[in-house]
Amino acid sequence: MPIVVQKYGGSSVADVEKIRKVARRVKDTRERGYQVVVVVSAMGDTTDELLALAKQVSPDPPRRELDMLLTCGERISMALLSMALQEQGVPAISFTGSQSGIITNDAHSQARIVEVRPYRIQDELEQGKVVIVAGYQGVSYKKEVTTLGRGGSDTTAVALAAALSAESCEIYSDVDGVFSADPRVVPDARKLETLSYDEMQELASAGAKVLNAQAVEFAKAKGIVILARTAHGQGRGTAVQELVAPADTRVKGVTAEAEMAVLSASVESGRVPELLEFLDARGVRGRALAFDGLMGREGRAFIAVPLQDVHGLEALKRDVGARFGEVVTLREEVGTVTAVGAGLNADWSYLRRALGVAEELGAKVHAVHTSPLQLSLLVDKQHLKPLTARLHREFLGA
Amino acid sequence: MPIVVQKYGGSSVADVEKIRKVARRVKDTRERGYQVVVVVSAMGDTTDELLALAKQVSPDPPRRELDMLLTCGERISMALLSMALQEQGVPAISFTGSQSGIITNDAHSQARIVEVRPYRIQDELEQGKVVIVAGYQGVSYKKEVTTLGRGGSDTTAVALAAALSAESCEIYSDVDGVFSADPRVVPDARKLETLSYDEMQELASAGAKVLNAQAVEFAKAKGIVILARTAHGQGRGTAVQELVAPADTRVKGVTAEAEMAVLSASVESGRVPELLEFLDARGVRGRALAFDGLMGREGRAFIAVPLQDVHGLEALKRDVGARFGEVVTLREEVGTVTAVGAGLNADWSYLRRALGVAEELGAKVHAVHTSPLQLSLLVDKQHLKPLTARLHREFLGA
Repeated sequence: MPIVVQKYGGSSVADVEKIRKVARRVKDTRERGYQVVVVVSAMGDTTDELLALAKQVSPDPPRRELDMLLTCGERISMALLSMALQEQGVPAISFTGSQSGIITNDAHSQARIVEVRPYRIQDELEQGKVVIVAGYQGVSYKKEVTTLGRGGSDTTAVALAAALSAESCEIYSDVDGVFSADPRVVPDARKLETLSYDEMQELASAGAKVLNAQAVEFAKAKGIVILARTAHGQGRGTAVQELVAPADTRVKGVTAEAEMAVLSASVESGRVPELLEFLDARGVRGRALAFDGLMGREGRAFIAVPLQDVHGLEALKRDVGARFGEVVTLREEVGTVTAVGAGLNADWSYLRRALGVAEELGAKVHAVHTSPLQLSLLVDKQHLKPLTARLHREFLGA
Repeated sequence: MPIVVQKYGGSSVADVEKIRKVARRVKDTRERGYQVVVVVSAMGDTTDELLALAKQVSPDPPRRELDMLLTCGERISMALLSMALQEQGVPAISFTGSQSGIITNDAHSQARIVEVRPYRIQDELEQGKVVIVAGYQGVSYKKEVTTLGRGGSDTTAVALAAALSAESCEIYSDVDGVFSADPRVVPDARKLETLSYDEMQELASAGAKVLNAQAVEFAKAKGIVILARTAHGQGRGTAVQELVAPADTRVKGVTAEAEMAVLSASVESGRVPELLEFLDARGVRGRALAFDGLMGREGRAFIAVPLQDVHGLEALKRDVGARFGEVVTLREEVGTVTAVGAGLNADWSYLRRALGVAEELGAKVHAVHTSPLQLSLLVDKQHLKPLTARLHREFLGA
C-alpha cells in the first residue's frame, strides 16, 4: 500500500474539535487505501506561549532548555490526535522525534536533520496503524532533544516522506495552496497551480509563510512532490515540484517580510560572505545590502535581518561584534517587498518598474537586492502592504 | 561532596515567581557544599488540566498516549527551573526520565521503576552542575514513555537518592512535614518529629497526601532517610526512617479518604486475594471488606476502592467482571477514616473506642478493616470530617 505523509499546522489542530476533524480526514485517507503518517505542529499559539513563559524567566533563554520546553507543544497535539483517531476506531500511535528516528546535529533551536531512521514507523505502518509524529523536533547524536527552526514541522514531513519513499507529502494549512501574494493584502491574488522548488524557496526566504525554505530544499534534493492544500474542504492546492517549463521572466509572486532591522557591522570586505554564513548557521536570513569602504580594507557592511529569526537581538549583535567588529542597529521598523520569478535579473526592466512603483507611492527605498530568482526592495514598514499590492498589479496585472 | 536530592511539588513551582524562589533555595543548598539533584512536579494544576483535555477527546484515554501527554507537565517546569538557575549564575541542566536513566516496566499510568542508571546525572554533577529531573516519569524497556502513578514524583526522588547514594532525600510541599491529621480538618493536629516507614506507608495508603506509598516502600528497602519539609521558610519537617523505638500501640495519626465506592463482585472465596492483586496491578488500592458466601463456593466479595485511583470506573468493572464474575456498584459517596499506629490490632480496645465515637456522631459504619498498623471505618461521606476530628481527639487528645 502506498504511503502518504500529511502535515497539519497549528491552526488546523488549534482545539479539540479541529483535532477531531483532522482525525476524520486521516481516517478517510486511510479508507482510500493509504498507509498514513501524520506530522503535527503544536496547538494554536502554544509554541509562542511557551516561549513567552521562558522569556519571563530568562530574557535570552539557553537554547538547549528552550528546545526541551518548546517540544512539549507537539507532544500534546500528537497524543490528543492519536486518542481522537482511536476514539474513531482507527488504530494509531504517536512518536516523538526521537522515536521516529529523526537524528539531527546539535545546533539547538536551528538543528539540521542529518539522518532519518524510520524503522519503528515502518513497523507500526505494517501493523496497520496510523503513525503520528511530533513535528519541529528530533534528537541529536548527543541524545539531546532539538528543534528544527521556524516552520520545522514542514521539514519533518518532507524528511519522513523521503525516508519512507512516500507517494506524496501533503502540507495542510488554512489556505488552499501558494498564492501570488498574501490574499489579505492583495484580495485578487491568484492561486498558483504549480511552482518550482527554486521559486518556492525564494518566496519562503523572502517571508512567504506557506512552506519552510529548508523543507523545500530537502524535497528538491530527493525529488518529493509537495502538495500544499487547505485543511478545510477539498481544494486541489499547489504542487511544488521540479521545474518543468523553460525558465521565463514572468513574476510568480510578490511577498513582504515585515519586522526587519538593518545592522551595520564594521568588517573587512573579504569577510562579508563569512559574516553571512555566520548568520545563516544561526538561522538568521541575513541579506547583504551594501558595503561601504575600499576593497581589501575595513569598511561597513549593511545587513538586513528578519527579527523573527533572532531570539535576542542584543545577544546577536554582541556575538557578531566579538567575531567581526562592532555592530550597531542602523534602522528598525523596516521590511522588504520581494518579487519572485525565474530570471528576474535577466534585464533591468523589472527593477526599473519596481522602483517606479515605489516612487509613485512615496516609499523611500533604502536598499535593493537582486538575484536570478528575485528582486527585493527595503522600505519603511508603513509602505509594505501598499507596495506589495501595487507591485502585484504592476507585474501580475491584478 | 555529598549529594542531596530535593523534590518540589506542583504548588511549589506553580508560577514563575515560585520557580525563582526554588532556584534560590537550590542555589543556597549548593553554596552550603552539596551536589544537588532536583526533582520537579508539573506547575500547579497542569497535570489535571492535561488530563481534562484528554478526556474531552476520549472519555477513557488509551494509557500509552495519556503518558505521552501528561509527561509534558514536568518537562515544562524542569526546563523553566534550569533557565532560572542559569539566570542566577548556577550551571544547571534538565533531564527527562529517560535521560536520567529511570527504567520502568510497561504498565502505563502505573509503571514501576525496575532499574535506575544514573550515569548522565553523575557526569553532570561531577562537572559542577545542578541536575533537574522530571518527576513522575520514566522510560520502559520497550522505549516508551511511562508515568509512575499518583505521587510518582516522590518515587522518582527516592529512587534517585538510592541510586546516587545521596546523603538524604528532601520532599518539599506546602506543609512543614507530616501531621497527625490534615490541619484543615483538625486545627490542633500535631506535627510528627519522626515516623517509621511502615507508619508512613499506612497513612499514605489510607489517603494522607504528604508522601507517596510506593516512594516510602523504596526508601525502606534502601534505608534512605526522607525529610518532609516546607518549601516556605526553614521548618525542620518530619524525618521518615527505620523504626527505632519498640512498637507501641500509640496512634500516630488519623486520616480520611473521600470519594470511594464499594463494589460487589461475584467470585469464589479462594480468588479474593487474586482479585486484590489484580486491582493492585492496576494501581487501585482495593480494600477487602467482607466476603459473603460459603467457603470454597462462589459468593460475593465487597471491595472498597478510591475513585481517584480509577481512570474509568465502568471500564474497571467490565475488566474485573470479565475475569472474575459480575461486578455491581453497591455504594458510592462513601469514604474511610483510618487511625494509624504500630500494633493497633493488638487488642480490641482501639476498635471498640473508634466504633463508640462513630455511634456518638450518628455515623453508620458500613464496614471495618483492621491490620497490625491501622484500623479503618467505612462511612458515608458527610461524616468523614467530623469523625476524623473526633477520633483524633479520642486517640491523640486534641
